[in-house]
Amino acid sequence: MQNNSSQEEEAFKVRKLEISDKDKGFIQLLQQLTSCDSVSDKEFEERFQELSSYGDNHLVCVIEDTRSGKIIASGSVFIEKKFIRNCGKVGHVEDVVVDSSARGMQLGKKIVGFLTDHAQSMGCYKVILDCSTENRAFYERCGFKQKEIQMVRYFI
Amino acid sequence: MQNNSSQEEEAFKVRKLEISDKDKGFIQLLQQLTSCDSVSDKEFEERFQELSSYGDNHLVCVIEDTRSGKIIASGSVFIEKKFIRNCGKVGHVEDVVVDSSARGMQLGKKIVGFLTDHAQSMGCYKVILDCSTENRAFYERCGFKQKEIQMVRYFI
Repeated sequence: MQNNSSQEEEAFKVRKLEISDKDKGFIQLLQQLTSCDSVSDKEFEERFQELSSYGDNHLVCVIEDTRSGKIIASGSVFIEKKFIRNCGKVGHVEDVVVDSSARGMQLGKKIVGFLTDHAQSMGCYKVILDCSTENRAFYERCGFKQKEIQMVRYFI
Repeated sequence: MQNNSSQEEEAFKVRKLEISDKDKGFIQLLQQLTSCDSVSDKEFEERFQELSSYGDNHLVCVIEDTRSGKIIASGSVFIEKKFIRNCGKVGHVEDVVVDSSARGMQLGKKIVGFLTDHAQSMGCYKVILDCSTENRAFYERCGFKQKEIQMVRYFI
């Protein structure tokens, strides 16, 4: 018989995004991050296949609450190939989100740890991300340090 | 007969990186940006081919001074495919550098403009980059605004 903590470990395991996750609330979860209002099954499948074609160079991971069958956390990392740093690689972490009902369970840290480990296993010399100043302390707890500033130009 | 300004236009045209640019000081230029000390011809060609396989999703551009045959400016942009923003795309500008002897000729602005235009033509809803606070004013002149902070974790 499992004890509570190993049951929880099993219930909140990080895994790769699967195509069936659209029906498990994946898009609704992303809506907590930013605008994401009308992704059709076809669009989702096309983007899923496109990202899959990059293999380990673009990873989207999720945590499914296996008790409710809902996706409650997600994040992604892609591997940029450079010429600098002797043809080095950099991991870019993007779109980390935890369901508002599942905060305080260290799921964000699990997601970031999973993505960071992936970048390291891919041979990256560093992993980077952009965040609001409000989230700086969280990422510091994940082993990150503030370095530069992010600049943006919107087209729409 | 061309006047001076159109001659200069011709001499400082932005174009895609070519495999022969390694012999035109491309790596030496990158060394002004960060550590990049021992890229062999084989490593360069492999990375070049790898990036070429991404087609328009990863573009490295350069400015060659056609009078000296030297690469004097460079930058790159890659297109990230997302699920958020209705399966939107984001351009990431990286590794913008202008040769120390060629500053003050607006070459950096030309490079950034080229990369930004490419991201827009690829259907991105925004283009982003990270820079030091010292370079913020330059990117503001290129139409960017400061938004978030960059966090980093080094593996080596």
